[in-house]
Amino acid sequence: MERPDLTSAIDRLRSRGPLVHNITNYVVMNSTANALLAAGASPAMVHALDEVADFAPIAQALVINIGTLSAPWVAAMEKAAEAANAAGVPWILDPVAAGATAYRTETATRLAAMGPAVIRGNASEIMSLAGEAGGARGVDSTKGSEAAQDAARRLAKRTGAVVAVTGAVDYVTDGERMVGLANGDPMLARVTGTGCMATAIIGACLGAGLAPFDAAVAGLTMLGVAAETAIRHANGPASFQVGLIDALHRLDDAALVAGVRWA
Amino acid sequence: MERPDLTSAIDRLRSRGPLVHNITNYVVMNSTANALLAAGASPAMVHALDEVADFAPIAQALVINIGTLSAPWVAAMEKAAEAANAAGVPWILDPVAAGATAYRTETATRLAAMGPAVIRGNASEIMSLAGEAGGARGVDSTKGSEAAQDAARRLAKRTGAVVAVTGAVDYVTDGERMVGLANGDPMLARVTGTGCMATAIIGACLGAGLAPFDAAVAGLTMLGVAAETAIRHANGPASFQVGLIDALHRLDDAALVAGVRWA
Amino acid sequence: MERPDLTSAIDRLRSRGPLVHNITNYVVMNSTANALLAAGASPAMVHALDEVADFAPIAQALVINIGTLSAPWVAAMEKAAEAANAAGVPWILDPVAAGATAYRTETATRLAAMGPAVIRGNASEIMSLAGEAGGARGVDSTKGSEAAQDAARRLAKRTGAVVAVTGAVDYVTDGERMVGLANGDPMLARVTGTGCMATAIIGACLGAGLAPFDAAVAGLTMLGVAAETAIRHANGPASFQVGLIDALHRLDDAALVAGVRWA
Repeated sequence: MERPDLTSAIDRLRSRGPLVHNITNYVVMNSTANALLAAGASPAMVHALDEVADFAPIAQALVINIGTLSAPWVAAMEKAAEAANAAGVPWILDPVAAGATAYRTETATRLAAMGPAVIRGNASEIMSLAGEAGGARGVDSTKGSEAAQDAARRLAKRTGAVVAVTGAVDYVTDGERMVGLANGDPMLARVTGTGCMATAIIGACLGAGLAPFDAAVAGLTMLGVAAETAIRHANGPASFQVGLIDALHRLDDAALVAGVRWA
Repeated sequence: MERPDLTSAIDRLRSRGPLVHNITNYVVMNSTANALLAAGASPAMVHALDEVADFAPIAQALVINIGTLSAPWVAAMEKAAEAANAAGVPWILDPVAAGATAYRTETATRLAAMGPAVIRGNASEIMSLAGEAGGARGVDSTKGSEAAQDAARRLAKRTGAVVAVTGAVDYVTDGERMVGLANGDPMLARVTGTGCMATAIIGACLGAGLAPFDAAVAGLTMLGVAAETAIRHANGPASFQVGLIDALHRLDDAALVAGVRWA
Repeated sequence: MERPDLTSAIDRLRSRGPLVHNITNYVVMNSTANALLAAGASPAMVHALDEVADFAPIAQALVINIGTLSAPWVAAMEKAAEAANAAGVPWILDPVAAGATAYRTETATRLAAMGPAVIRGNASEIMSLAGEAGGARGVDSTKGSEAAQDAARRLAKRTGAVVAVTGAVDYVTDGERMVGLANGDPMLARVTGTGCMATAIIGACLGAGLAPFDAAVAGLTMLGVAAETAIRHANGPASFQVGLIDALHRLDDAALVAGVRWA
């Protein structure tokens, strides 16, 4: 198995400082923007139909997250994806709560077929996109990430995207290769939007010029290693979140390479 | 006066981990989700007309908060309330700034008549819903909670809901019984959305199977006791808010029972 | 040069506790509300077309921020500005990312012509509004604030607004007078929405009855001095943001006057 080379991921991200165009959900806009800033990117949240097609091409990456979708937002997501594709800007899809309602499953399935470089979700979301019953319970998965490995491979082959399934262990596959990552902390699941943060940081790595597989591995490892730093001084989920963003800001490639735990 | 039994409220909440469907305002979506996670619930923010009727029945409770209402959101709130009613899912109404504009008063009045299990507001909001001049000043009340006790009783009798008026002392009534709760800290009023947090945590208690009166008392006490823990180490409102969520996460039934202060 | 008298700015703000009506972007609603509370104001986020014209006249100031604009929100911004003008309520415009897309530039230009008391932006935004190529890169400026001094003067003369350009040094001009302020810390640029916070706090100062020029200088100095306090105990951008709000809450006029650094 060829593992991605992480020795310069953060340095590349910070030296390029990619402009990352986000069409994401209301719950996490603030924490996503702060995570992107801490990682070294320049976030912008732009969703109006009147401007997404103008904005997507000037960004280095696009993040589409359906967490609080509604009809006008879905229209903007599709328009932005088309504009990004036309301009050669890579984009990542976060199919939040796919499987929980027909509306989410259909929207996420349509977006997944539009050519994202990466799709990141929990087990339920990835299984739902792959056409299986995924056991969604609202925005949470009732199944562990290991249960979604086959679904991830199939989804990757069908869409051409790298697929990342996050959970206690994170799995990244391009349909052939598959790596497991064991970084992180259970407290991540007690803070809203940490999955969305992972998606956005992978988007930033895409914007820094990393290949999709490498971007997914680097982004997930950045968040996971930062979480391991943050938990040491946390008294609960809120101080953990403060420490998480601080740790992302202080993280460098040496700590990333020393900290990665392959599963 | 029969006081609710709080000895197993948190245990019930955490063992059930209720899925709580929120249609709430933009300002507090993130802090509400984090408060619900800290309390032991599983929050989901879902507002699209295309899916609220599918989502409400699979949740254990619904929270409707009109803080940043607009026409499409109000339509979704009404549709979700109907679906929750049809499925027997209890719901709570937060009539943010009712009384401040005619639009808010009318919307909140219409929702209050649709059968919420609990209505939680400040004095102005509850007085406005009861048909009195409530002295709203934006989202704040110019009157203390004690001034709204009669209005709360009348509103409870008219709607069949348990009504909670929050302030320096919180009052909970079903139209007959009335209890006062003296927990909390004035710093709660210097952090945006703590009233909305109270509403959401009461919603989580409803989702855990507590009766509406008990859910209101338990939810308000959880937030109040956590606030008393948080203020001890706070340097201001932001560190207080971090401590508040951390304290909610660490709170257990023994601390709740030891900490409750009946007024 | 006549420098504004800051000796009672915070005292006036806290004794009046102005109700500040915000039509702002999703990313910063929560942090803006908390910054306004920490400064001593009473924030309300109200954007529905059905109520903005009722709400604007009862507030002491209005903040219009186009960060996540879309067609219905722009309509509400224009309606609110008209209602504020009719009622003599001062308002401030934050032209987020003007220059990045034609839609933003046109919207911001139209609003700037409607009579704001103050316009606050970064160099790119102010240069774009003044009709120059501003070098916008998403929501960030590629130019330093000093490059926008002439544009700021011209924009102030054309619109009648006081114009504030923020950056390493903040400049405030009414078209004739110009002062520079050197407070703050580079970490402000690593937290999302601190520019929006500055705008909102200036709005609060307008609501406290300060003249536009004085309000801009007082508001920027409040945030800048608080940042200098916060950085001392910060481990990164998230703990800095917590400390920033705490420091705003604890700031008084004596510290403001002692801390201001004229450039």
